[in-house]
Amino acid sequence: MRKGHNLLAVGDYNQAVILDLIRRASPGLSRVEIAGETGLSAQTVSNVTRRLLKAGLVKEGERLIAGPGKPRTLVELVRTSRYAVGVHLDPTVVTYALLDLAGEVVADHRTPTPSAADPDTVIALMAEEVRALLAREDVARASVLGVGIAAPGPLDSTQGILLDPPLLEGWQHVPLRDALAEATGFPVVLEKDVTAAAVAELWVDSGEDRDNFAFFYYGTGIGIGLVVDHEVLRGASDNAGDMGHLMVQADGPVCACGRRGCVGDLVVPFRLVQRAVSSGILGPTASIDTPLDGPVRHIDFDETDHRFTEFTAAARRGDAAAVAISDDAATHIARALVSVVNLLDIDHVVCGGPFWRRIAPILRERIERLVADDPALIPSHPVTVESSAIGEDVAAVGAGCLVLDQTLSPRPSALLIAG
Amino acid sequence: MRKGHNLLAVGDYNQAVILDLIRRASPGLSRVEIAGETGLSAQTVSNVTRRLLKAGLVKEGERLIAGPGKPRTLVELVRTSRYAVGVHLDPTVVTYALLDLAGEVVADHRTPTPSAADPDTVIALMAEEVRALLAREDVARASVLGVGIAAPGPLDSTQGILLDPPLLEGWQHVPLRDALAEATGFPVVLEKDVTAAAVAELWVDSGEDRDNFAFFYYGTGIGIGLVVDHEVLRGASDNAGDMGHLMVQADGPVCACGRRGCVGDLVVPFRLVQRAVSSGILGPTASIDTPLDGPVRHIDFDETDHRFTEFTAAARRGDAAAVAISDDAATHIARALVSVVNLLDIDHVVCGGPFWRRIAPILRERIERLVADDPALIPSHPVTVESSAIGEDVAAVGAGCLVLDQTLSPRPSALLIAG
Repeated sequence: MRKGHNLLAVGDYNQAVILDLIRRASPGLSRVEIAGETGLSAQTVSNVTRRLLKAGLVKEGERLIAGPGKPRTLVELVRTSRYAVGVHLDPTVVTYALLDLAGEVVADHRTPTPSAADPDTVIALMAEEVRALLAREDVARASVLGVGIAAPGPLDSTQGILLDPPLLEGWQHVPLRDALAEATGFPVVLEKDVTAAAVAELWVDSGEDRDNFAFFYYGTGIGIGLVVDHEVLRGASDNAGDMGHLMVQADGPVCACGRRGCVGDLVVPFRLVQRAVSSGILGPTASIDTPLDGPVRHIDFDETDHRFTEFTAAARRGDAAAVAISDDAATHIARALVSVVNLLDIDHVVCGGPFWRRIAPILRERIERLVADDPALIPSHPVTVESSAIGEDVAAVGAGCLVLDQTLSPRPSALLIAG
Repeated sequence: MRKGHNLLAVGDYNQAVILDLIRRASPGLSRVEIAGETGLSAQTVSNVTRRLLKAGLVKEGERLIAGPGKPRTLVELVRTSRYAVGVHLDPTVVTYALLDLAGEVVADHRTPTPSAADPDTVIALMAEEVRALLAREDVARASVLGVGIAAPGPLDSTQGILLDPPLLEGWQHVPLRDALAEATGFPVVLEKDVTAAAVAELWVDSGEDRDNFAFFYYGTGIGIGLVVDHEVLRGASDNAGDMGHLMVQADGPVCACGRRGCVGDLVVPFRLVQRAVSSGILGPTASIDTPLDGPVRHIDFDETDHRFTEFTAAARRGDAAAVAISDDAATHIARALVSVVNLLDIDHVVCGGPFWRRIAPILRERIERLVADDPALIPSHPVTVESSAIGEDVAAVGAGCLVLDQTLSPRPSALLIAG
């Protein structure tokens, strides 16, 4: 049942709306412009601005003289007044991003994910990397709002625990959120990687302001983050966004679920590298030994990463066998996206994740065309497929944005009295 | 960009919240209870109640004397103060439902969909049926808020036009909304059938109050309505909810899209009847002549309807061949639902539609078990599968609820100043 409207929440909500507006405007906005853009009264804008100034989140900037009236003073964001750290734990790589209050990446850093190490050791390493990142950038701990960590699902969001991520060996039932909070001394939010990537797309100003889209995540595994009416769709247990078991090929290889033709199993970087090795594009390798037609068991992530770079280079050069492999991948991904488009009536897909940038020049346009031409596509509007402007760091940036988002974003649902 | 909070909208929103609360309470609520449930001030509750009394939407009821204080007067809905008509155009059957202000079905009525007639004739027939329904129930035209019509997608919701519904021959680009408004003289809202069914589930009090679920629609075709945070997910062009082309069987028959194993093609009533005829459970028939392994071309809907009743009766009796056919259907539906659950992290599926009731005793429990046991299921929470309490009229009831909903429901998004 819907609860009544909470008048006490209006102030906070309006504050978040105004801060969000100032954050997105460069160099700033006058109070009159803020009132015009938000529809709020001059008095409300003035009161809220005073609170924001006092908290050091905004400052008074340039005075604009236009005509005979009172000059207008711009209110600008103090970008360096607060920071957030985003960490993305992918089975292949751990990415760190330091974000200022505007959501801009001040610094980033990547390390290979230590595959042999136990989670405790990896978490201690993460905390050390976060400490070093803040020290290098000369950021005071007191100005850090918190740490966001993005990790592969499924996870228990209430407990902050990774449940059984299929590609992270030894990470079953790890209380990542609390362990990282203890190791860093900061509050930590844990989110599924694909959801974090979608949050990044929402937060970081890309010039377009879309309220509805899907984020196709291409990392060591694949996934899809869903944004509906400007909010990320998280689902009953915050595990929404799994598309790996969508069936797209009748006679595909056997997936870990026991069935054939699951899209995740067909298009992840490891499988493309494996096919490239088996068709002779890449030289033989000792560490990529899972049979082509069998569930993925052990992956040498570091080797896969390097080999994927070689494979995509071959495809970009026009090597016929490499192009055939990437064309197949485009076909499978497009087929899966059509299912998602049909279910949710989506008109925009953003693609990104750690492995996307290398393969984007070969895949993006082809996927867009295949979706448009698919005889099973239901909606009659165009479906655009674009690469994320944020790049490979997207999930780490999203994890940092989550911290900013939890602190600063306006949400209409916050206007309802908690049930 | 989020707009600021619109103080002018608060009154309307609170009015809708209070009316919604009274509507769901039986026999009614005191002003004190309303304040307690909504968190609104006594003054606000009193003002809003006065407006509702004046409009004749509520009345003062029983006086409750409890203790030494002032007696409390119940505020009750005047159910018969307003009505809405819901119409559901399925290729097999047209359903009419007359709803009172509480969303209760006062009367309903079904007619076969005239398959040979042109849309204009069918629309004129619909208007005549609506007129006769109101006359039979002695409902004044002035108390009718409007007509909702649910139809198969895809549709152009802006123009109110059916675009190209695959099973409604001759209904391409029909301006159904405006034509029905002209023929009936009432305002008309048009919605996709599966979306209307989901709206009905949200509106009609089922004893449970779920904010997130999927509605599996089993009519002449299939579909899935999605509810997220108590709002129906409509998508970019209001065509969300198509699951028919999810691939669930590697060697299935060829669908109209040209591929094999699409769930819609495998499990629609016509296909089950066709298999029942071809395996000798039902006697041969002249009108069900599309080959089993080929796209559905012409369907004798009336014949399919009768044959489906015979087939489900055979399966309920335990006829082995009929049970095998329905078990296969359960397997395919469960597989498709697992894809939807994985994407959206849904924990509850409600099933209904014109053909569901007959097959529910054979399918429901089996689908629930197959979903739970599916090795590709990602979320670790249970996924319940239930039959809609509303029954076969669900899309017509939903179409009527849409009219009530547009007029009366509280929506937090209405609190934002329109952009």
